[in-house]
This record gives sequence, structure tokens and C-alpha cells, in this order.
Amino acid sequence: MKAVVHHQPEGFDGLKVMDMKESNPGPGEVKVALKTSGLNHRDIWTLFRKRDSTDPVILGSDGAGVVEAVGEGVDRVHVGDKVVINPSLGWPTKTEAPPSGFEILGAPTHGTFAEKILIPSDNVEPKPTHLSWTEAGVLPLAALTAYRALFTRGKVQSGEHVLVPGIGSGVATFVLLMAKAAGARVTVTSRSAAKRERALELGADTAIDSSIEWKQQLNGDQADLIIDSVGPATFDQCLKQLRPGGRLVNFGETSGKTVEIPLRPFFFGQLNFLGTTMGSSEEFREMLQFVNDHQIRPVMDHTYPLSEAVEAFQRMEEGKQFGKIGLENE
Amino acid sequence: MKAVVHHQPEGFDGLKVMDMKESNPGPGEVKVALKTSGLNHRDIWTLFRKRDSTDPVILGSDGAGVVEAVGEGVDRVHVGDKVVINPSLGWPTKTEAPPSGFEILGAPTHGTFAEKILIPSDNVEPKPTHLSWTEAGVLPLAALTAYRALFTRGKVQSGEHVLVPGIGSGVATFVLLMAKAAGARVTVTSRSAAKRERALELGADTAIDSSIEWKQQLNGDQADLIIDSVGPATFDQCLKQLRPGGRLVNFGETSGKTVEIPLRPFFFGQLNFLGTTMGSSEEFREMLQFVNDHQIRPVMDHTYPLSEAVEAFQRMEEGKQFGKIGLENE
Repeated sequence: MKAVVHHQPEGFDGLKVMDMKESNPGPGEVKVALKTSGLNHRDIWTLFRKRDSTDPVILGSDGAGVVEAVGEGVDRVHVGDKVVINPSLGWPTKTEAPPSGFEILGAPTHGTFAEKILIPSDNVEPKPTHLSWTEAGVLPLAALTAYRALFTRGKVQSGEHVLVPGIGSGVATFVLLMAKAAGARVTVTSRSAAKRERALELGADTAIDSSIEWKQQLNGDQADLIIDSVGPATFDQCLKQLRPGGRLVNFGETSGKTVEIPLRPFFFGQLNFLGTTMGSSEEFREMLQFVNDHQIRPVMDHTYPLSEAVEAFQRMEEGKQFGKIGLENE
Repeated sequence: MKAVVHHQPEGFDGLKVMDMKESNPGPGEVKVALKTSGLNHRDIWTLFRKRDSTDPVILGSDGAGVVEAVGEGVDRVHVGDKVVINPSLGWPTKTEAPPSGFEILGAPTHGTFAEKILIPSDNVEPKPTHLSWTEAGVLPLAALTAYRALFTRGKVQSGEHVLVPGIGSGVATFVLLMAKAAGARVTVTSRSAAKRERALELGADTAIDSSIEWKQQLNGDQADLIIDSVGPATFDQCLKQLRPGGRLVNFGETSGKTVEIPLRPFFFGQLNFLGTTMGSSEEFREMLQFVNDHQIRPVMDHTYPLSEAVEAFQRMEEGKQFGKIGLENE
């Protein structure tokens, strides 16, 4: 079967579309014929990460498709079921941190950028019926990350003011949609006027230019909760826009590896800085319920055929996308 | 009446023992004849802080004494009551952050380093009967700060491993005693062998040398909760010793003004960095209940007569104390 893999060498030169062997589901596994999948920044990082094995590994954490075969002992899933893939391996319940052995699907375990995937039956869930295959295929990792950041970690409340620096990434667009659905007011930031415009169309209450002093643009309207993945470039502005007792939840470092925190305003402000990542299977199911209840649809940037995955990776690397980049099996 | 004040100029040269006018309680106020009071680092900072007024201001947040007169409309307190002073002005209930207008007793409002004090009747509480006057006089600010850090913010649970960097300060010694009373295991750090020895006598389970790699001394035994006021000097070691999902609560910056946080281990570790200060009146009453229930006694360093307050300030400035520094009225 056709698959997008990482093979030697490290980096983009190791990104290849090649033929991989298909096999049959073992006990507790299901085989899904994937219709669509979705890109995440993690797929790029994986190209640069050291692995123990030198064998090609199929990339991809997101996907949706139809169950084609079930292994021994599987009774919660049936052949013909339309499913989305839950990429959280070995983190069953909503705990403070993942248990040891936790892994995200897509290197070292073969991922979703392929025609077929073998996966534990606990890692497929019914596809939301209001979503197209393309939308369902890009949902999993980013929507799960947004859900954990906003609800489990950020504990967003209806009526709160949520700030999302750097709107444009898949997770950030889900945060915007979910926060609005939860009854929050949402401010986004971007240097790009086009991205700010898009965010307002999607329901953002305010969109400010991240390269201009935020305080002035926000008119002193501080945030209860900030969901950040930008890191150092705008961290100082974030801290200053957080109300006393507010929460800053971070899951990324797109502008640099470390942030500096001035202690005095931090402790006098009773501030909360909370790290988060994608979540557990329990949160994945809660996220699907929320997406169904509020009829949330992923913001789609562009979709490529699986054979053109290299172009899709390049688009993500350039950081020009707004929303999710999808892949489609022919 | 004799009082320890800050008057011009800024700094230690403005620290003076002088005669101040006594007055009578207004409506809702009580007048307390103070028997003892206690020093906090805040009293030193106050010497260096710009104030609007150039009049002398009586320093001091901590104190205990006997009610000598009550103002109009006061019925919860009576003449002759033995009381401790609650230095939290304008923060009645346990909220995420203090309301605007919140103030700590002792500049700009006249404080406790005097023979008498006028204070709102809501800011006195019954003196714990198991404490001496000297012990009661040093309790308020440090015990309240420790209580909020450990319980309200840190949410310590019985059986957890609590790490207290830089044992020696009043707050740190209260954190040690309260954490033990709450059923936690406690590790302290200090560069001073004498302070480590004293902490072990007070019930610390482990005391490590803060100048040597902590991981090795702790044998991989990570902390659930760290209550820190040291800041940058040991912050990196703190982050590394925090278990996934653990909490680092900070209320001080004794080693420097900013800390650096590497984002990747922070968000992958699902870590929590929480700022705190002293607390509300509600927490002050909870703290007293806890101190009574567990018969906690402040660790006393040294007590000076009020007239020798300058020596007491010098001892605190040198940072050699272990526990609280008290003042006694003659």
C-alpha cells in the first residue's frame, strides 16, 4: 500500500512516499481503510527526531476511514463502521499527566498517512456525522490538544475572556471555535491582517495586531485565560494582559525554547502558568461529544492527495496556513 | 507611645524608634495594647519603597496583645480579649486574587511595631491558647502566607512529597510544620549544615545541600509540590525535581527577579507554576484553626525588645535567622 514515511536521512530529505506492506489485525486490533488524514507540526518534528530503528516508519497522527477487519476479541467496533482515529496510545483516563509508556500515534508506531492502518480497537471512535471525511480526518490531534488546553487545564467558564495569540494553527482555530461554543469572549492576535479577518469571520470577538502593544489595542480588557503556543515572542505581552488570578496555558514554543517570568508581578498577580499537550482517550471522547453537541467543524486550509504529501509538509513548514492541512487517499 | 517607624530618608537610615501619638478607636475599630510583634522581609522592603506621604509610618504586620478599647458598633470583640492581629486589610474571602484596595498592614497604614494599634475589629482573632505571647506575635503574616501557598494554591494532599528550597525563613519553617501536620513527606534544602540539622529536628524527612546536584541526593524521588521563595538560584533544579503534573508554588525572589522556563519539558511535563502571596481573612481564620488543631508553634529565632528593633532588622537583613524574629514591648 502507498504510505508517507520517514526514512533516512534526518530531515525533509527523509520524507518519502513509498510502498509499505499491509498486514492483518492481531487480537484487540482493527484495520481501518483510511479515507483522509491530517497534518500536524509533530509530523515535521518527527522528521528531525532520532529514532531507535532505521526502518521506514509511516507518519501521521490524524485520520478517518472505514473499519475493514477486526481482530480476535474485538466487540466494540464492527466491519463497516465509519471511524476517526484517536492518536493517544496508552493514556486511557484524564489524569494530571500521561502514564509512562504513553505515545502519540505516528512514529515510532506506524501512523495514518497510508491507505490502511492497524490500531487498537480502543483507538477508534464513531465519526461525527456532521463532518465530511476531509474534516473528520484532520480533527483528532489538534482538537484533542485544544480541548485539554481549554477545558481540562484552562477550566474555561462561560462569559470569560479568552486570548489566543497567533491565530492560524490548527489547534488555535479549534481553541477559538470551542471557546466560543463554551460561551467565552475570544480575542485573537496575528501579525497577518488576512488571518485576523478570517478569525473574525469564524466568530472571534476581537482580533488584534500582535506586533503592536496589546494593552492599548485591548483598552485594558484583560484576559481570564490565555491559550498560547507561541512562547517567547509574545510571552511578556501575554503576562501583562492576564488579569490577577488568571491562567496562561501553554502547549508550544513556535518562537523559541524558553520564556522569562518576572517573579514579582507573577506572584503578586496570583498568576497560573500551566503546561499542556494533547490528552487522554477519555478527553478524546469528551472532545467528540463537544464537537457533536456544538456541531463544530474544523477550519480547513488546503487538502492534498496522499501522493503529494511533500507539498503538504512544505505548506505547513512555511507557516502560512490558516486551519488544518488535510491529505486524501485516491 | 514608643514605635518603630520609617521616616526619611529611604533605606535603613530612615528606620527609627520614636514617639508617636496615641488615639482612640473610631467606629468599627478596636485598640489593642500590643505585647509582641514579629518581623517580616516586607518590613525591610518597606524601608526602600516610595510612599506618597513624608510623615513617619509605623512599620510591622505581625502582632498580638490585649484589646484595650472598642469603637462604636463593635460587638465581636471585647475589652480584655487576647488577640492576634490579621494583617490582611480589604481581602475578606478566599478569592483567586485580592480585590482592588487590598493592603497589608504596616505602611501605608500604621503597623504593629508600637505599644498600641488601632485596627478594624474584623482584623483581630482569638490568640491560640497554646502559644506564648512571643509565639503569637510572630505568627500572622508568615503563617498565612505558608497556609495559602500550601493549601489554597498548592492543594497539598496527605502522603505527597513536598519540597521546600531554602529552609530558614519564617514562611519556609511554617510550610515545613504545616506540611508535616497535613501528612506530607517533606524534603528541605539549604547550603547551611546547621539549618539542615534544625529542619530535621523539626520533622523534615530529608534535608539536602542546595549547592550540590539535587537529583542525585534525592535518588530520583521527585516532588509532587514545591513551595519556593528562592527564585532563580535553584529554579532549574526545582523544575527538574517536579514529577509530571506537579505544582511549583512561588511567593518570593530572594535570589533574583526573573526565572527562565524551558517550554518543552514544562508542557510535556504538564507542570504547574503558581504565584501566591499572603492571603485573605478567610484563610487567616482557617490558618488559626489549623494551628490550633495541630498545636503548631512558630519556630523562634531570636526576640529583641522593641527599642532594639534596628538590631532585629539587621539580623533579618543578614539572612542568618532560622525561623521568626520577634519584638517585645517592655
